[in-house]
Amino acid sequence: MTAPIDPGTIPPHALRRVIDTALEEDAPWGDVTSETLIPADATATATLAAREPGVLSGGGVFVDVVHTVDPSIEVVLHVPDGASFTAGTLLATVTGNARSVLRAERVALNLVQRMSGIATATASYVAAVAGTRARIVDTRKTTPGLRAIERYAVRCGGGHNHRTSLSDAVLAKDNHLALLLAGGTAIGDAIGAARKRLGHTVHLEVEVDRLDQIEPVVAAGVDTIMLDNFTPDMLVEGIALVAGRALVEASGGVSLDTVAAIAATGVDVISVGALTHSARALDLGLDIDVAV
Amino acid sequence: MTAPIDPGTIPPHALRRVIDTALEEDAPWGDVTSETLIPADATATATLAAREPGVLSGGGVFVDVVHTVDPSIEVVLHVPDGASFTAGTLLATVTGNARSVLRAERVALNLVQRMSGIATATASYVAAVAGTRARIVDTRKTTPGLRAIERYAVRCGGGHNHRTSLSDAVLAKDNHLALLLAGGTAIGDAIGAARKRLGHTVHLEVEVDRLDQIEPVVAAGVDTIMLDNFTPDMLVEGIALVAGRALVEASGGVSLDTVAAIAATGVDVISVGALTHSARALDLGLDIDVAV
Amino acid sequence: MTAPIDPGTIPPHALRRVIDTALEEDAPWGDVTSETLIPADATATATLAAREPGVLSGGGVFVDVVHTVDPSIEVVLHVPDGASFTAGTLLATVTGNARSVLRAERVALNLVQRMSGIATATASYVAAVAGTRARIVDTRKTTPGLRAIERYAVRCGGGHNHRTSLSDAVLAKDNHLALLLAGGTAIGDAIGAARKRLGHTVHLEVEVDRLDQIEPVVAAGVDTIMLDNFTPDMLVEGIALVAGRALVEASGGVSLDTVAAIAATGVDVISVGALTHSARALDLGLDIDVAV
Amino acid sequence: MTAPIDPGTIPPHALRRVIDTALEEDAPWGDVTSETLIPADATATATLAAREPGVLSGGGVFVDVVHTVDPSIEVVLHVPDGASFTAGTLLATVTGNARSVLRAERVALNLVQRMSGIATATASYVAAVAGTRARIVDTRKTTPGLRAIERYAVRCGGGHNHRTSLSDAVLAKDNHLALLLAGGTAIGDAIGAARKRLGHTVHLEVEVDRLDQIEPVVAAGVDTIMLDNFTPDMLVEGIALVAGRALVEASGGVSLDTVAAIAATGVDVISVGALTHSARALDLGLDIDVAV
Amino acid sequence: MTAPIDPGTIPPHALRRVIDTALEEDAPWGDVTSETLIPADATATATLAAREPGVLSGGGVFVDVVHTVDPSIEVVLHVPDGASFTAGTLLATVTGNARSVLRAERVALNLVQRMSGIATATASYVAAVAGTRARIVDTRKTTPGLRAIERYAVRCGGGHNHRTSLSDAVLAKDNHLALLLAGGTAIGDAIGAARKRLGHTVHLEVEVDRLDQIEPVVAAGVDTIMLDNFTPDMLVEGIALVAGRALVEASGGVSLDTVAAIAATGVDVISVGALTHSARALDLGLDIDVAV
Amino acid sequence: MTAPIDPGTIPPHALRRVIDTALEEDAPWGDVTSETLIPADATATATLAAREPGVLSGGGVFVDVVHTVDPSIEVVLHVPDGASFTAGTLLATVTGNARSVLRAERVALNLVQRMSGIATATASYVAAVAGTRARIVDTRKTTPGLRAIERYAVRCGGGHNHRTSLSDAVLAKDNHLALLLAGGTAIGDAIGAARKRLGHTVHLEVEVDRLDQIEPVVAAGVDTIMLDNFTPDMLVEGIALVAGRALVEASGGVSLDTVAAIAATGVDVISVGALTHSARALDLGLDIDVAV
Repeated sequence: MTAPIDPGTIPPHALRRVIDTALEEDAPWGDVTSETLIPADATATATLAAREPGVLSGGGVFVDVVHTVDPSIEVVLHVPDGASFTAGTLLATVTGNARSVLRAERVALNLVQRMSGIATATASYVAAVAGTRARIVDTRKTTPGLRAIERYAVRCGGGHNHRTSLSDAVLAKDNHLALLLAGGTAIGDAIGAARKRLGHTVHLEVEVDRLDQIEPVVAAGVDTIMLDNFTPDMLVEGIALVAGRALVEASGGVSLDTVAAIAATGVDVISVGALTHSARALDLGLDIDVAV
Repeated sequence: MTAPIDPGTIPPHALRRVIDTALEEDAPWGDVTSETLIPADATATATLAAREPGVLSGGGVFVDVVHTVDPSIEVVLHVPDGASFTAGTLLATVTGNARSVLRAERVALNLVQRMSGIATATASYVAAVAGTRARIVDTRKTTPGLRAIERYAVRCGGGHNHRTSLSDAVLAKDNHLALLLAGGTAIGDAIGAARKRLGHTVHLEVEVDRLDQIEPVVAAGVDTIMLDNFTPDMLVEGIALVAGRALVEASGGVSLDTVAAIAATGVDVISVGALTHSARALDLGLDIDVAV
Repeated sequence: MTAPIDPGTIPPHALRRVIDTALEEDAPWGDVTSETLIPADATATATLAAREPGVLSGGGVFVDVVHTVDPSIEVVLHVPDGASFTAGTLLATVTGNARSVLRAERVALNLVQRMSGIATATASYVAAVAGTRARIVDTRKTTPGLRAIERYAVRCGGGHNHRTSLSDAVLAKDNHLALLLAGGTAIGDAIGAARKRLGHTVHLEVEVDRLDQIEPVVAAGVDTIMLDNFTPDMLVEGIALVAGRALVEASGGVSLDTVAAIAATGVDVISVGALTHSARALDLGLDIDVAV
Repeated sequence: MTAPIDPGTIPPHALRRVIDTALEEDAPWGDVTSETLIPADATATATLAAREPGVLSGGGVFVDVVHTVDPSIEVVLHVPDGASFTAGTLLATVTGNARSVLRAERVALNLVQRMSGIATATASYVAAVAGTRARIVDTRKTTPGLRAIERYAVRCGGGHNHRTSLSDAVLAKDNHLALLLAGGTAIGDAIGAARKRLGHTVHLEVEVDRLDQIEPVVAAGVDTIMLDNFTPDMLVEGIALVAGRALVEASGGVSLDTVAAIAATGVDVISVGALTHSARALDLGLDIDVAV
Repeated sequence: MTAPIDPGTIPPHALRRVIDTALEEDAPWGDVTSETLIPADATATATLAAREPGVLSGGGVFVDVVHTVDPSIEVVLHVPDGASFTAGTLLATVTGNARSVLRAERVALNLVQRMSGIATATASYVAAVAGTRARIVDTRKTTPGLRAIERYAVRCGGGHNHRTSLSDAVLAKDNHLALLLAGGTAIGDAIGAARKRLGHTVHLEVEVDRLDQIEPVVAAGVDTIMLDNFTPDMLVEGIALVAGRALVEASGGVSLDTVAAIAATGVDVISVGALTHSARALDLGLDIDVAV
Repeated sequence: MTAPIDPGTIPPHALRRVIDTALEEDAPWGDVTSETLIPADATATATLAAREPGVLSGGGVFVDVVHTVDPSIEVVLHVPDGASFTAGTLLATVTGNARSVLRAERVALNLVQRMSGIATATASYVAAVAGTRARIVDTRKTTPGLRAIERYAVRCGGGHNHRTSLSDAVLAKDNHLALLLAGGTAIGDAIGAARKRLGHTVHLEVEVDRLDQIEPVVAAGVDTIMLDNFTPDMLVEGIALVAGRALVEASGGVSLDTVAAIAATGVDVISVGALTHSARALDLGLDIDVAV
């Protein structure tokens, strides 16, 4: 069972902001091409098709963009979010006012191509760790303004989400630990004090870079320990030291080449920044037919 | 001489919206890690360094993010936008309140990494066409909400910008022409009529897919003709047909492998969607030192 | 054939902002008159009528204001945008909840009166130049916040639009040239360098004040040359100097008294700031009948 | 003593919205002219001068526009808001970055020219009624989005403001009375009931079209009675009927030709829609000098 | 007859802002509980019931919150705003998608509980002064951002509204008078000058703390005089001094224990800050039934 | 050690929105009282003093309101947030432009009085449970739009925060369980499935109403179990059943009368809706002195 991929789980206010901003950005003063060349009452049918195989994410977002431009346009989705498809698959059909379709086209494609690119990349990682206990999770290395839809795209690819932001879980990294040490605070004391101050629902995760940092951190009672840039051998050793007292997350240097070996060590969570910071847009095309 | 890469050419309202949205998205309820672990008055120095070679874009944006969080932080940029650097190059130094630096870190990095990724990719294309008359230009395949900064990043890489949006130039594509034909309008008549209706400052560009479409389009008086998915040989033939009556833009199927051959045909403009829709984030890191 | 006057060519986000701002401004705390005097369920029919002759602009905007207040109100437009009417012409009929009609009245009138005032003024200029090659265009001297709808109103009057803003075409004025000279740059060199830096779709226009400035500017390859404050005789001479190498725009000191003579010189474009900066609101009235 | 003309009495949030909207509208993607022609570090001095006589309004707004673009620019105002000036008067001096001055120029001028046009028109009306008890007031016929600054401009011309909006005073017009009558409510009863429902600070004004409507309205206890489209003779008769029991406002058909005769009747208030709905922009110019 | 309690008298823009802000605040990243536990297509019926007696305010707001989340949900209100109810009364029934109902629940309750708390408190004060001429009015001591709906809630409880804000009536308090005195201005002169500067629709109220301040203030021609922190005996004496020349408002130290005695003095208006600044949320509950 | 009470932990974007909204709401068209009565250059000193004992929250917010109105005003805080004070304590001194101080007064007071009311109420609860393991936490029953500052106020009173919103922790209530049961899903299975779908940092809490519901819920692996409306005896029994396998939260019917007995049972967390939904504004006053 994977994380929820119902499009309704994209917060509507975040999606609204993305769509409104993108549409205004793409035509601050209207679409001079269509307004001068296409009659106001011309209609068209357009088909969204895959030009390469992948996993769909953003079908509902595609619909929302089109309906923001013109609620009278009919859009039929042929493939649900989260589904795999082959090159050439017909993904959606759009019918209605031709100017409106042309106005929505680029923004709708920009979103669904990016989201499907992320879902497809995620699915590759998820497939690579199949049969292990490891889940593939995203990071905060998302596109500014698009975090909500990119996290959704990761779920469409079968991945899970890490914390949403700085606000909903503690993740103490090397920089935090260095600052603590500089202040003369022992790591165990600091974590204990944080527990007292934090709300009882706040997850507490700490990153370590070396095996000898594991024991004091785990002993201080963290919920998850992140082993950063550990080799598979070190991960095995680290997991043994943790001994089930916390979840174990592997991070750093994760690629499709390395992820299977990392997962094989028995880690619970593998975080992959590249899912969102370097995903390639999937090649989808909208071909507009002349209305009959 | 390349297009302007002065950071002041990013429209301030667009940049403000990106930064505010990203910062709020990354900490809707504050940074629980720093607030519980780092003393409110701790200070730190952090260094932004390149972990791979590339071309910088977004130094000024990086500064703006940091100063939005905390105007009292000192940021010194060591490399200007548009400059190439090697792996290991120190790009910037940040000094000030530790919580503020940690709060700004991820958003600032997400932006400068993406922008530098685009600039670096663009620079590769520009280098590949050096010595020809061709300029490398972007498309409307930008990240929703980030078009202004991504266009700037293209300029940092030595590229030029195509039209900003649907509003400031006509670009009639195959879909438009098909709709015109379906309405029984000859292309020459349509373009002539458009000229009469358009403002005199609006550039008029038309895309064609076949050699035989060139003459009527050029004869109708376009400013630029786009030859879409033409092979180099077809481009040479097409340029001869245009005969200097319009600028010639090549588009479709442009990659680092093909761009030199395309440029060698003598086209004026080569548009590359991948500059923005599939750029990889450049690997830059912010390492935080403990203040002395 | 005139520029598009389809109301759909007003960018919806700009119109939304104008209407929402105006309605909130006109009743931050509700309409105390109607709320205390008019029963909540009273209905009314109101008629929008012309109290003087003119050209309509803003019929669709009028409808949008009313429907923003109350989507259940029925509005029937009897005259399309761009049409001329005589005093006494019935322009629209509004039927529905009385409080809603009264709430929308002032804002709807303020907009359609201003827009029709601009369209009517523009139509006078257009009529005055009939039979010449000159088109009447607007300027950036628009009401702050209302540029999109005022540009549309100009089109309703048969005029054309100049560039939308500072962003979509170069227009180098005397101030720019003076600054260039002060920097020791020859005008031809400056324009040539600008061409290299600008996107290939950006129109390049330069203003000159004297006949001897024409040749270097035109030779440098501008798209349009603006002859500012030239007498008709000077315009004739200037047009001869340009010799078809660029479009010619006349500006400065244009009034209904002078525009015919200016147009008779053979200029391509005449820009008139007064179309928008000093248009008088057309006298239209909304008379509310009691519902039967 | 006139109403307050301190620029600080323009609500800052309203002014901020106007300026931000106008600046973004005037350069959604930057100023391509300056960015390609003017060096980033060029400086200039510009002078704001009157090309015709008038009354200044918007000096502070002019400064705010400039400082929104660039807080480092120095602006010196030579004439205060509310002061009269002759053609040729130097109104302000602006010194600083040349690109910034050019960027701010048009928006700043559009505002100060409109505001000064309103102030100048208002001053003409105020002068025409000098020596009478009548005050000249504005109406709700203001430019959508600009009401706050236009009301201020009226005060700069020596006028007073009517109610700000539908929210802060009752003004029952013919339409309201007709709807009341249709509902079978006697006007006196309606006004009495309204008094009971309204907050005690809400001013109650009723418009009448005929002399015989005056007694029941005044007897019902209104604060002001508006005599709409009354001739001077009828106004004299009406004022006698009111007999000091309410303020008397004249409205309808007020022009510079008629206002003196109206004022001579002894009315307290004369409202003039043309102050704001048809004011001509005053001719002010910004001449940019090259920095030394 | 009380002030209007039609929900339509809440300004829609203010209500929209409150609801959008509250919904986004309550689920910036979605509702993880429902999204993981409740099927996307589950439906439910929920009933809003009173757990204590009171006066309803916010029924329409409750509906708006629910419909903002999901327009397809059916909401039936069983009790109108302004009505009293006993503990156990069924107030509304909600039927539709279960996730949507759960998403809207808390925000809808937070609003209707607060509003009903204010209405209930107000009704207690209104009941306590029944039979006197005094009306109970609110103050500016409202919750930041909620003034429009809190003023409406006061009306639902049978109260009236004081001025909406600093903008629509003068209320000169001790601080203003002290500043005037410090400037050497006599109170009568100051009020007279203010009258000349203020719009003719602006109500003028002045607060006094002592009996000897009454005569100069009333003689200067105020509309309302506020007697602050006067005992009932002093109020009687003050009212006699005012002698019908102005409305009299009592303020300060008003509680349910003292309000009847204050009203019995014959004051016109009693302002009670506690109506809004310290109202307790009324205990209302939403019980969700499983759909059949 | 209590939760962080540094004012910097209020998210700045949330605070900015509250302050801007409140200031605009309180003077959409300026402050007519000060603008007509107080000279523009008058200065004043005002003191914020406690009229009853309490715990301060919102000192920094008070400063931010004042500085939003006028950055030139000097504000000195004499008591830090989180500190107790007696009636009569001087809390802050404000010096600067008199109009600005009067403009900021009401909004600043409305916020600091509400926040201090919450802090003071919280401190009473915290004091009542001193010496037990129980922490006092807030709920989502906050004022719409003010959650961020109300949560901060709870921390100022020594309390802790529960989850921020629906997005950052699961809290399955009776309604969720009923819907699950209706769908035929066993509670243990549902919770197990949820764990698989949720991000690893999401806290999982489940509410039960009866003792026999405890074992299946705890066995399914929740992080916290909420015992709703349990008597102290039942709580003791419930805690024994949980046997340390989860945190135990008591909720429902918590008042100052009952909280000590509840805490004495050994629960970990006690949630109190009244902290925010029914807090009384603390009586603080701003007395403005005339400047010397």
